[in-house]
Amino acid sequence: MSTIRVTIWNEFIHEREHAVVTQIYPRGIHAVVADALREHAGDALAIRTATFDEPEHGLSDAVLAETDVLTWWGHAAHDRVSDAVVDRVQQRVLEGMGLLVMHSGHASKIFRRLMGTSCMLRWREAAERERLWIVNPSHPIAAGLTGEFFELPHTEMYGEFFDIPVPDELIFISWFEGGEVFRSGCTFRRGKGKIFYFRPGHETFPIYYDANVRRVLANAVAWLAPTGSAYFGNGRNITPSLSPISSRHIVDESLHRPK
Amino acid sequence: MSTIRVTIWNEFIHEREHAVVTQIYPRGIHAVVADALREHAGDALAIRTATFDEPEHGLSDAVLAETDVLTWWGHAAHDRVSDAVVDRVQQRVLEGMGLLVMHSGHASKIFRRLMGTSCMLRWREAAERERLWIVNPSHPIAAGLTGEFFELPHTEMYGEFFDIPVPDELIFISWFEGGEVFRSGCTFRRGKGKIFYFRPGHETFPIYYDANVRRVLANAVAWLAPTGSAYFGNGRNITPSLSPISSRHIVDESLHRPK
Amino acid sequence: MSTIRVTIWNEFIHEREHAVVTQIYPRGIHAVVADALREHAGDALAIRTATFDEPEHGLSDAVLAETDVLTWWGHAAHDRVSDAVVDRVQQRVLEGMGLLVMHSGHASKIFRRLMGTSCMLRWREAAERERLWIVNPSHPIAAGLTGEFFELPHTEMYGEFFDIPVPDELIFISWFEGGEVFRSGCTFRRGKGKIFYFRPGHETFPIYYDANVRRVLANAVAWLAPTGSAYFGNGRNITPSLSPISSRHIVDESLHRPK
Amino acid sequence: MSTIRVTIWNEFIHEREHAVVTQIYPRGIHAVVADALREHAGDALAIRTATFDEPEHGLSDAVLAETDVLTWWGHAAHDRVSDAVVDRVQQRVLEGMGLLVMHSGHASKIFRRLMGTSCMLRWREAAERERLWIVNPSHPIAAGLTGEFFELPHTEMYGEFFDIPVPDELIFISWFEGGEVFRSGCTFRRGKGKIFYFRPGHETFPIYYDANVRRVLANAVAWLAPTGSAYFGNGRNITPSLSPISSRHIVDESLHRPK
Repeated sequence: MSTIRVTIWNEFIHEREHAVVTQIYPRGIHAVVADALREHAGDALAIRTATFDEPEHGLSDAVLAETDVLTWWGHAAHDRVSDAVVDRVQQRVLEGMGLLVMHSGHASKIFRRLMGTSCMLRWREAAERERLWIVNPSHPIAAGLTGEFFELPHTEMYGEFFDIPVPDELIFISWFEGGEVFRSGCTFRRGKGKIFYFRPGHETFPIYYDANVRRVLANAVAWLAPTGSAYFGNGRNITPSLSPISSRHIVDESLHRPK
Repeated sequence: MSTIRVTIWNEFIHEREHAVVTQIYPRGIHAVVADALREHAGDALAIRTATFDEPEHGLSDAVLAETDVLTWWGHAAHDRVSDAVVDRVQQRVLEGMGLLVMHSGHASKIFRRLMGTSCMLRWREAAERERLWIVNPSHPIAAGLTGEFFELPHTEMYGEFFDIPVPDELIFISWFEGGEVFRSGCTFRRGKGKIFYFRPGHETFPIYYDANVRRVLANAVAWLAPTGSAYFGNGRNITPSLSPISSRHIVDESLHRPK
Repeated sequence: MSTIRVTIWNEFIHEREHAVVTQIYPRGIHAVVADALREHAGDALAIRTATFDEPEHGLSDAVLAETDVLTWWGHAAHDRVSDAVVDRVQQRVLEGMGLLVMHSGHASKIFRRLMGTSCMLRWREAAERERLWIVNPSHPIAAGLTGEFFELPHTEMYGEFFDIPVPDELIFISWFEGGEVFRSGCTFRRGKGKIFYFRPGHETFPIYYDANVRRVLANAVAWLAPTGSAYFGNGRNITPSLSPISSRHIVDESLHRPK
Repeated sequence: MSTIRVTIWNEFIHEREHAVVTQIYPRGIHAVVADALREHAGDALAIRTATFDEPEHGLSDAVLAETDVLTWWGHAAHDRVSDAVVDRVQQRVLEGMGLLVMHSGHASKIFRRLMGTSCMLRWREAAERERLWIVNPSHPIAAGLTGEFFELPHTEMYGEFFDIPVPDELIFISWFEGGEVFRSGCTFRRGKGKIFYFRPGHETFPIYYDANVRRVLANAVAWLAPTGSAYFGNGRNITPSLSPISSRHIVDESLHRPK
């Protein structure tokens, strides 16, 4: 298996502005996500990171051309992400780049662009318990999970209705102590690219230190890596035809009249 | 059953510029689509039409607010459709308005917006034979079709790969004389709105006079009419919670530290 | 719209053997389900009932031939249902009869036959609270529901993993007070028939008196009624072909040799 | 990656009874399928074969317990396959064994058992051309295919309506010279097991010598190999609950009365 080139994108704003977040993620969420991926699949990955403040948000054509899987964490600056960069990321997804959208990334421009919907949801910050139940046990993204569910003791709640298209595959459904459910692990295909939305990850809880979350992130990156055939999403005229067509069709003007 | 308010949108350019099209659709494609709908479901429908040249393309807020199902035929002017109108139509779909996208409408801004993909495909103009095979016989959009397939003797070909998300439901697969296949009848849900893409309809052939095509158009409008529950696509904070949450969670600062 | 002929099948054992059940359903669960359907769609339905103790469980060829939608409630006698009747019901579903499987019917022979899986799940009887969240707001089975969820104050719990094929459509996800989630409203297509599994309904709680549950049952019966095209599930040889095939193919023996 | 243990099951009747088949597959179809898998993934596979005439059709409990992926080719003896073996294979699929069903295996007991439908289709033996178009280019089963389609010059035709449940994933759609289309590459999940149906393979044409077909078979076996979490398809009572339930619920008899 060849190396998967991963670019971990993080807004990297909360970590520098809020003490509670700095305490959890002193080097930024991206650094901890990178650790998680290395822990599970170090040899198979070539990891780089990129953040909002870099030129072109760190996502130049050159960087994206060398990216097999892009992970996305954003929250405070969704509206300030450049449309040109969003166009570029969308195009790369259609061409086959995998995209892992994490937690508050649900409201990012790129996720909304690829979904066509509002991607909005209900939420609550009450440090409540979450259980992620596995509903697709044969999916590689669930590999290595040993129980029927895994649990996060204190999380921000996300609840339905989650305004997304029907997922191609639904892997996790969350239960929340306060009374809600959520489709927490969803796959989508767009063009030749695969997308995985994974709910856990609020910045004020140490979610990305959780062993099960880390495993799912690593599984997801492996699943998102490009595979399959070539991309055929650019239209073209196919003339002449592959198989013969009765020649009278083309010249008979009466075909172009209602009966 | 209450009346379904249908707005038939047509670009209405080819019919005024090309003699072969004028001959088939002298009053415009929209007029013939309206006839088709009236033929099958006259009493249940309140039909209006709108075209590209009208102010706001005939799709003002007021018109859309009174529209249950919008049908879309465009080809020559996709790029000139106003983004503000596309925003507005997308929002109405999310709120529940049905959308019937016809033939070359696959490349319209509104369809691409709702799909998140290029929506491109292969094509050929060779007046060739098409057979639409039914692969979802219990779907109401196939109601009243009596054979395993129906046939159009002379059509423009559309072939795979059709760069759309995986359809929620696949109803028709086309066979073309020249060697291609196509997913010709596809449903999608976005927000509270339903979408049906239906392939047949090239402007230089009298497709919208075909009895089976007309039946499918009428079935589709009935299926696309709003139903279901209320729309919940606008996010909101749900505090306090529906069910009790252990109060210690909220005050314990140690929750916000990695272990 | 023509009349929908509904046959409500109920095992009708618990109601005659357990006082707590008799108290809730003195005339049997089937009688209360019939009331629920009549309440919402009386004029559109022709309702009959059938129970386990009747000859052929009340499901003779003649009865099934006159049934558009069959509803199924069973629990204690799954194993004693005749295989011949199961064969017959399966065949009628493939031909287009709708099937509404309720609550403990998940473990019935007919549901397992149509699903191909164990259809097993987790459960608990603790009179706990259930909230059914709507995740497919445009589906006609959710019609008329006004909130984001509806609630049952005391229910038997069913929890994931629910061993079913991936549903064609997922309409409700349940939250349970004790910590589980469940895919509580699922549609499936088999042959030309449609199937809806609806979780609520334990015999020791008065679930089928709940207004929202009754509405969903009525919506489901309307959605399950046969529609679409003819059924094409019986194989056949199509010779000669619809379109010409190069005649050399058939006579050239070399085609039948590996190169 | 650990070794995948593959059992290639072949009826092995036609090859011994019909000269034209003997000529193509002198050692049996299973031997050529084994060659195909070895060609692409030799080191990663441990291959054994089993045939109809062996005791228990070669599919004892012991063999199945050591099988990660089972491939199935049958035609003449579907009805004579032992129900006990079918039960056993189904159970192993639910527990996670992958199943590759090939060509005429569509009518096998095991495929029909897992689908719940007739699995019938249209057919014709006219040595006609087939093109398999890729409609899911990011799927690993399409890996390494370089064109938009691949072609088989002479095949038995299988046409729609193919009476299967809606596939979880549709990868190939076939075009046939004589006028039909077919869903030729379909995935399904049942329990923890994955299933792939692949159409090509008639015994009187040398289909399993085709390079693209061989590649797809090898891709499919890799995709079918067990992964994911543990299997949770055996029901159980979860008492006490994971999260607290109001104790009054359990003792209040009024809960068990309709209001």
